[in-house]
Amino acid sequence: MKQVVDVYEVGPRDGFQNLRDYVPVNEKLRIIDGIIQAGVRHMQVTSFVSPKAIPQMRDAREVAEACLARYDDVDFLALVPNLRGAQLAWESGIRKVSYVVSLSESHNRANINRTHAESLAELRKIREDNPDLHICLDLATTFGCPFEGKLPVEAAVAFAAPYAELVQEIDLCDTIGVANPRQVRETIRAMQEAYPQMPLQVHIHDTRNMGMVNTLAAIECGVTAVQSTLGGLGGCPFAPGASGNLATEDLVYMLNDIGYDTGIDFGKLLEVSRYQKEAIPDGIFSGHQMRISRSTSCG
Amino acid sequence: MKQVVDVYEVGPRDGFQNLRDYVPVNEKLRIIDGIIQAGVRHMQVTSFVSPKAIPQMRDAREVAEACLARYDDVDFLALVPNLRGAQLAWESGIRKVSYVVSLSESHNRANINRTHAESLAELRKIREDNPDLHICLDLATTFGCPFEGKLPVEAAVAFAAPYAELVQEIDLCDTIGVANPRQVRETIRAMQEAYPQMPLQVHIHDTRNMGMVNTLAAIECGVTAVQSTLGGLGGCPFAPGASGNLATEDLVYMLNDIGYDTGIDFGKLLEVSRYQKEAIPDGIFSGHQMRISRSTSCG
Repeated sequence: MKQVVDVYEVGPRDGFQNLRDYVPVNEKLRIIDGIIQAGVRHMQVTSFVSPKAIPQMRDAREVAEACLARYDDVDFLALVPNLRGAQLAWESGIRKVSYVVSLSESHNRANINRTHAESLAELRKIREDNPDLHICLDLATTFGCPFEGKLPVEAAVAFAAPYAELVQEIDLCDTIGVANPRQVRETIRAMQEAYPQMPLQVHIHDTRNMGMVNTLAAIECGVTAVQSTLGGLGGCPFAPGASGNLATEDLVYMLNDIGYDTGIDFGKLLEVSRYQKEAIPDGIFSGHQMRISRSTSCG
Repeated sequence: MKQVVDVYEVGPRDGFQNLRDYVPVNEKLRIIDGIIQAGVRHMQVTSFVSPKAIPQMRDAREVAEACLARYDDVDFLALVPNLRGAQLAWESGIRKVSYVVSLSESHNRANINRTHAESLAELRKIREDNPDLHICLDLATTFGCPFEGKLPVEAAVAFAAPYAELVQEIDLCDTIGVANPRQVRETIRAMQEAYPQMPLQVHIHDTRNMGMVNTLAAIECGVTAVQSTLGGLGGCPFAPGASGNLATEDLVYMLNDIGYDTGIDFGKLLEVSRYQKEAIPDGIFSGHQMRISRSTSCG
């Protein structure tokens, strides 16, 4: 029996929101469709945020509704920064949301303009407003912050305590790509020990080419849900120096080759990756996709 | 006590030999110098091959002699394909050579135009001619061949047997970048079991973005000597689809950050990497270097 790893495609949110130019809805849906055709079954499709703050996501409702109307076997998530976003997501039919808080308070302020206390209070409002909503805590800057550097493992464990009573999952995010595999293992093990019932995910940026090694480290510690973006799109507008996420095609190639069961067809994934590169010429793509494209013919 | 990992820079051989244009000796020496200034103490500086076959290496003697004259605390190696090359290397003052044989016979023919029997016979001649020469066997296509695909671990172990009596080290090469961490671990462990006294190295191409994860897998199995090229230069002219090596700067960043003792200053390494990129504009550089360059300011 192969071990299952669920790949969460977050490009339609973390990727598209960081592009210079708006990607039209039909183009977004075409890319989402290609990713699903390749076998991806978990996807963060959009973000219910202020259209002024992030104009790329102004079509959140349209994208979410179109996805939900088309597929009933895909686990769609949306990012929400606040109660209003959570309500809009629910009205669109979304039943799982990601709520972002940064472990570092300075990044929390830069990213969503809130203190830690305000972030926790807002999450309580969302939970009280809707007990049925599945909430995943995106714990940004878990492995390092552009302003405060690396925080100790104990800080993440302690910080998560009140959140663990409010959410169904915790996603440990390496927002600026500074984690290393030792740190990932120590953090995951400490979180597993503190919160043995809590499902964990990781979301690793590839800034320093450590996306693969850190994501695999998490998987080898027992994490079975990992995030990535097609073509390595992504970044963080409020984290200086952050670059793209781990590329889904690189991750899937590695996992399939090792012998994990991702359920994803690498060839089909590469097709939609190439399509995306044509369709979104201004994307910040990682180099890997090109290298993989060049070399698939040689086994 | 930090665990020591010896990083073997092989760019002056594997990198420069794959460039379109000849790199002048003074430029080669300037880059070599910068790498050494950053703290690298093991380097494959050139290849004593036919200048007709690989014109980039026509200055082998000059490069080797200049390096040896300048540094007495650096472990310099040269690649040699045959007895003549080994003799020329020795005459230049080189005391450690890499001798390449491919595990796959079809690649051995494509790469050095020999059968397996001919390769072994040539190595015996080199050994008989010079009992004092330190020879490292570069076992190309250990993890996969562009013509024959992946060979079983047992094939590598069995193949190495007669070589193990003739060489001082064995370097397991992922010539086309198809290894995965599971395969690396299985191969290293099988080799360690079969040849417990034999020092092992790895040489991993980054074709599918698995250079970091495979090299770390080898280190975590006890391998303490790993090869890479500054800027991710490299390839194999006789392996269709092969692209660059793991970039030294990515490797060193990761190892230092995890807490290994590489003795290498990442900042200085990045400086020479940037210099190299200016000096050799036609190099096939990996994307990582650029990403690291962009992001070093943010911790």
